[in-house]
Amino acid sequence: MGIPNNSRLNLFSKWAHGKYNLITDVSGVKVGHITIKDKNINTGVTALLPHSGNIFLDKVMAGASIINGFGKSIGIIQIEELGTIETPIILTNTLSIGTAFTALSKYMLKKNPDIGVKTGTVNCLITECNDGRLNDIRGFHVEEKHVYEAIDKADIIFDEGAVGGGTGMCCLGLKGGIGSSSRLVKIDDTEYTIGALVMANFGEAGNLVIGGKHYDTNACSNNKKDQGSIIIIIATDIPLSERQLKRVAKRATISLARTGSYCGNGSGDIAIAFTTANRLPHYSDRNIMNFKMFYDENIDMVFEATVEAVEESIVSALYHAETITGIRNTTAIGLQDFLRQ
Amino acid sequence: MGIPNNSRLNLFSKWAHGKYNLITDVSGVKVGHITIKDKNINTGVTALLPHSGNIFLDKVMAGASIINGFGKSIGIIQIEELGTIETPIILTNTLSIGTAFTALSKYMLKKNPDIGVKTGTVNCLITECNDGRLNDIRGFHVEEKHVYEAIDKADIIFDEGAVGGGTGMCCLGLKGGIGSSSRLVKIDDTEYTIGALVMANFGEAGNLVIGGKHYDTNACSNNKKDQGSIIIIIATDIPLSERQLKRVAKRATISLARTGSYCGNGSGDIAIAFTTANRLPHYSDRNIMNFKMFYDENIDMVFEATVEAVEESIVSALYHAETITGIRNTTAIGLQDFLRQ
Amino acid sequence: MGIPNNSRLNLFSKWAHGKYNLITDVSGVKVGHITIKDKNINTGVTALLPHSGNIFLDKVMAGASIINGFGKSIGIIQIEELGTIETPIILTNTLSIGTAFTALSKYMLKKNPDIGVKTGTVNCLITECNDGRLNDIRGFHVEEKHVYEAIDKADIIFDEGAVGGGTGMCCLGLKGGIGSSSRLVKIDDTEYTIGALVMANFGEAGNLVIGGKHYDTNACSNNKKDQGSIIIIIATDIPLSERQLKRVAKRATISLARTGSYCGNGSGDIAIAFTTANRLPHYSDRNIMNFKMFYDENIDMVFEATVEAVEESIVSALYHAETITGIRNTTAIGLQDFLRQ
Amino acid sequence: MGIPNNSRLNLFSKWAHGKYNLITDVSGVKVGHITIKDKNINTGVTALLPHSGNIFLDKVMAGASIINGFGKSIGIIQIEELGTIETPIILTNTLSIGTAFTALSKYMLKKNPDIGVKTGTVNCLITECNDGRLNDIRGFHVEEKHVYEAIDKADIIFDEGAVGGGTGMCCLGLKGGIGSSSRLVKIDDTEYTIGALVMANFGEAGNLVIGGKHYDTNACSNNKKDQGSIIIIIATDIPLSERQLKRVAKRATISLARTGSYCGNGSGDIAIAFTTANRLPHYSDRNIMNFKMFYDENIDMVFEATVEAVEESIVSALYHAETITGIRNTTAIGLQDFLRQ
Repeated sequence: MGIPNNSRLNLFSKWAHGKYNLITDVSGVKVGHITIKDKNINTGVTALLPHSGNIFLDKVMAGASIINGFGKSIGIIQIEELGTIETPIILTNTLSIGTAFTALSKYMLKKNPDIGVKTGTVNCLITECNDGRLNDIRGFHVEEKHVYEAIDKADIIFDEGAVGGGTGMCCLGLKGGIGSSSRLVKIDDTEYTIGALVMANFGEAGNLVIGGKHYDTNACSNNKKDQGSIIIIIATDIPLSERQLKRVAKRATISLARTGSYCGNGSGDIAIAFTTANRLPHYSDRNIMNFKMFYDENIDMVFEATVEAVEESIVSALYHAETITGIRNTTAIGLQDFLRQ
Repeated sequence: MGIPNNSRLNLFSKWAHGKYNLITDVSGVKVGHITIKDKNINTGVTALLPHSGNIFLDKVMAGASIINGFGKSIGIIQIEELGTIETPIILTNTLSIGTAFTALSKYMLKKNPDIGVKTGTVNCLITECNDGRLNDIRGFHVEEKHVYEAIDKADIIFDEGAVGGGTGMCCLGLKGGIGSSSRLVKIDDTEYTIGALVMANFGEAGNLVIGGKHYDTNACSNNKKDQGSIIIIIATDIPLSERQLKRVAKRATISLARTGSYCGNGSGDIAIAFTTANRLPHYSDRNIMNFKMFYDENIDMVFEATVEAVEESIVSALYHAETITGIRNTTAIGLQDFLRQ
Repeated sequence: MGIPNNSRLNLFSKWAHGKYNLITDVSGVKVGHITIKDKNINTGVTALLPHSGNIFLDKVMAGASIINGFGKSIGIIQIEELGTIETPIILTNTLSIGTAFTALSKYMLKKNPDIGVKTGTVNCLITECNDGRLNDIRGFHVEEKHVYEAIDKADIIFDEGAVGGGTGMCCLGLKGGIGSSSRLVKIDDTEYTIGALVMANFGEAGNLVIGGKHYDTNACSNNKKDQGSIIIIIATDIPLSERQLKRVAKRATISLARTGSYCGNGSGDIAIAFTTANRLPHYSDRNIMNFKMFYDENIDMVFEATVEAVEESIVSALYHAETITGIRNTTAIGLQDFLRQ
Repeated sequence: MGIPNNSRLNLFSKWAHGKYNLITDVSGVKVGHITIKDKNINTGVTALLPHSGNIFLDKVMAGASIINGFGKSIGIIQIEELGTIETPIILTNTLSIGTAFTALSKYMLKKNPDIGVKTGTVNCLITECNDGRLNDIRGFHVEEKHVYEAIDKADIIFDEGAVGGGTGMCCLGLKGGIGSSSRLVKIDDTEYTIGALVMANFGEAGNLVIGGKHYDTNACSNNKKDQGSIIIIIATDIPLSERQLKRVAKRATISLARTGSYCGNGSGDIAIAFTTANRLPHYSDRNIMNFKMFYDENIDMVFEATVEAVEESIVSALYHAETITGIRNTTAIGLQDFLRQ
């Protein structure tokens, strides 16, 4: 739920945040976590539902930006081609995307008996970061049931920090995880919402920047390489076209830079943006369909509010993540513990 | 092993083919199939090994072209970013890519105990087409063991047609499957090889073209939509750069056109090209490394021989695929049966 | 005006063509040529107007595909980013695009006194092929006035063959030039038009294919390299989104393949598609605007009719181009002369 | 020559700069300016020479990143396809790129009598920003001779600030212009150089950030929209492949973010990177050529030093630009004047 005002982390902000300062401030979006913890195991699954109906039948318009393609996410290519998301979005660890794909496929098939019979297949959207620093990633501890449970748990209120897919993530020398934030923008006298959710696992120790200030986290970590990745989901109810959603997703790079990333070689940095305001039906009697888009000449406010929401989401992931010790006795310090030192 | 000369399928050809007229004419490349057949089940796994050593430690330079992105293949994004392939390439049905990913990850982890511990993760390359017309794709009949078995079976001699990943595929109104071919090109007095392997599942009934001649397959199929996909793997021992391999992969579109495709909306058409002549080590003491590339001004012969090899691979897939009847009592006619009518 | 039925050039066709079988069958589109011929000079300018109003104030939605980027066209990058065309499209020789840019900029500034003062600049769209085989291209014979004149001459009826920008072009061993065609498609009981115009200058002698039949043009030309380029303009009144227009543009590769191209290294193959059915205002009071797009699931007919229109445009360019002799006493044989031999 | 240490502009820096702290610290690179000033005229031309030989015959390996494609630069498409730069790079105002293209073409033709006769044409690289806030851009005041003069003046020592192509540029509410910087990195015991040069014309008043600190320039300017653009040239003597140069160019986005940009809609943000360490001959007897590339696993130092060099170049452009008053009596305040207030 964002960073408390008394946190001493002075993020620059031009726009107010939404009710919960979470991506779920965008009406219809829900998020659920399953956290899997046991001795050497620190991993999990986060599920994000773009809306509460049948997503396969009623797709949301989407765009993506592969900021740095050192990543194994599944489903990005088809977003690019068709401009839609048609399943929940799953966030988990790198080696578990196969299991997550199988589980999400079965979930979609159960809900849609026509898939693979009367119609084509389904484009499951599975994203990942490598939590191998804290988690026994080689153990494949995510099971299919965890994916169903994360989807079932999806709600408007959800936790941030070392939970769900973010359980074992590290970021900029500290403990990383799931963070979220939102911004409100007024367009033609109507209030719209932009929400962001990140699974933050990127950045070198020593490079952390918050609100323009450098923090030296070198003592906290021997993670001298930027090889973690970040998944960035941006949701909005502003009607944007496929091209515009790609442009919005691209702006997440700015947020990464504001927190100290230079998009390291080993970091799979993927941003996905969707709007709930343009829906595309799987079945249609008519071939010509209506959609709405934004006047590009004034789109800067959308870009800038997105940059803020993603930046705050990253800092919020750090802020809410508590110190944990994982596999090989590696400890990742939480930002609040770090600041108290 | 290509199309026999007496086949009446007059493919135009400027270059001679290699010893077996298979992708394995490129030294080091091997291919293995597991075919899974039972009542409603017509599916399988094909594994292609870029070379016989440890592919993770000794990567091959690669490029890819997403001809039409209605596809769910895993691993393409990282090829684009890093220009390498570091695992065997798996070809299977769309809904089985999760299982294939998990299996291939476990296989790689077993061979490389450093993955996820001392080094990052691994980029498994899993490709797919939808075999749901003939196969009970909703049954998830590919198991992890099938992937290991396909890799183990990999050899220089391999079958074409309705085998392995191609078992349940359909193409241009007829039975599709796996096809392969090769071409020899002489460069600076040395003979080099270009090989292609396809899993052909694309195209509308009624659009089949072979050697410039239209064949009306409408009677064979009610498949009036191009929604099947094709996976195209191109291997060579010509030293090409990452950029050049992407250009080579892009030329596969020409081969698709020559056989009757117009890259239909629902067809996930993916081409991947690699060269065994440029290897990139996973670990290196030196930061500056040597590689070789081709003089672009004369690269046309590489493009054109690639186009021929891919074209013949598609026709060879059709030629070798026998008539089969699958789920929902659907029959797909083999090309040789069709020609006999 | 397309290929006469008695031409013996049996193009396969599923759709009927429009009234004139020209790109101008798309209502509002106009084309004008200036042909510049004198001794060693064989060049010119073709101008295509997307509609008859103020294109800067009332932009058309557009997409582009860089099939092979060995080209110098100006303005493609901004089409990709903003999804619009806001000027006439100019086709000329490679070295004259600077002059054409200056001329078109001045033309746009004259019509729009706000450009560069109250609003930003303008994205002039200038495309090119190298006519240096027949034209003294080093002489920079295109002048600014030729661009104005080509725009002024733009009309619904226009010539094909060795005229305008196509005057000095060569193609597949024969004389190339400007060609055009159109196709009618019925969508939800309404008839729509897809039109194409090409400036054809690509392909190796020896590779010409028409209607699936190879023609050996090796005797006509010593042009053994595919280093000429083709510019492909696709216009339609079907409402397509920016993403869809890019997909349509991409399908032009299929038409190239059907006529014998393999997208040679030195060929700058650029396709641009626009729709007159989605207009974007330069100035808008509202930030949210309405558009129409096509149901992707049924878009195959649009793809396939486009492929036909572009294919026939290429053949029509050859068909209408007469034999000429240019600089260095080089002769390019017209297709009709070639067929008579 | 970079920012003096006593400037109070505390840029965070991990690497030392080169001898002159200019892009010309990369051996062989030279830069020349022509500044055109008269009443309402504030424009000019900057020419950058990748090396001192015949660039057409001895091309440098290159990559580019279109950060935001609201731009009209010429020549980027071919860099992408062929991975080379073969001419000097010209930086000027948006409407003058036609003139600059013609001039540079004539310059290249004079030096290379084979262009357009025995070989193909040449890919002139012309980049631009819109200086219409301070310059009578509608007057087309750049002439062909200015381009030749800028090339002739190219030297190792060159001015920064409101000179050459940067004469009329504005940036983040202040006077923009040309800036440059360099960084030294030690690789395998050898010292290499990364240099950057920018033409900075981007950013909203109110968003300026230097060294993590916000500066409120709202009082200086009514430029509330980010619609200016930035051209970023990165040169190095580190052997990087085409793919790696593209990755390096992409990292310039981070530098933009560090200075307050969010890549506004109207900003044409283009980055071009080249290495003098990989040369490609125009003519070659051999088809297989040797090159060197960097071990990606350790490329982070190249990325991070690039980000620093580009960031300092932007700040240096502001630092060296003096306050000027241009067309329509618009004043742009120089950073040093702003800091003195």
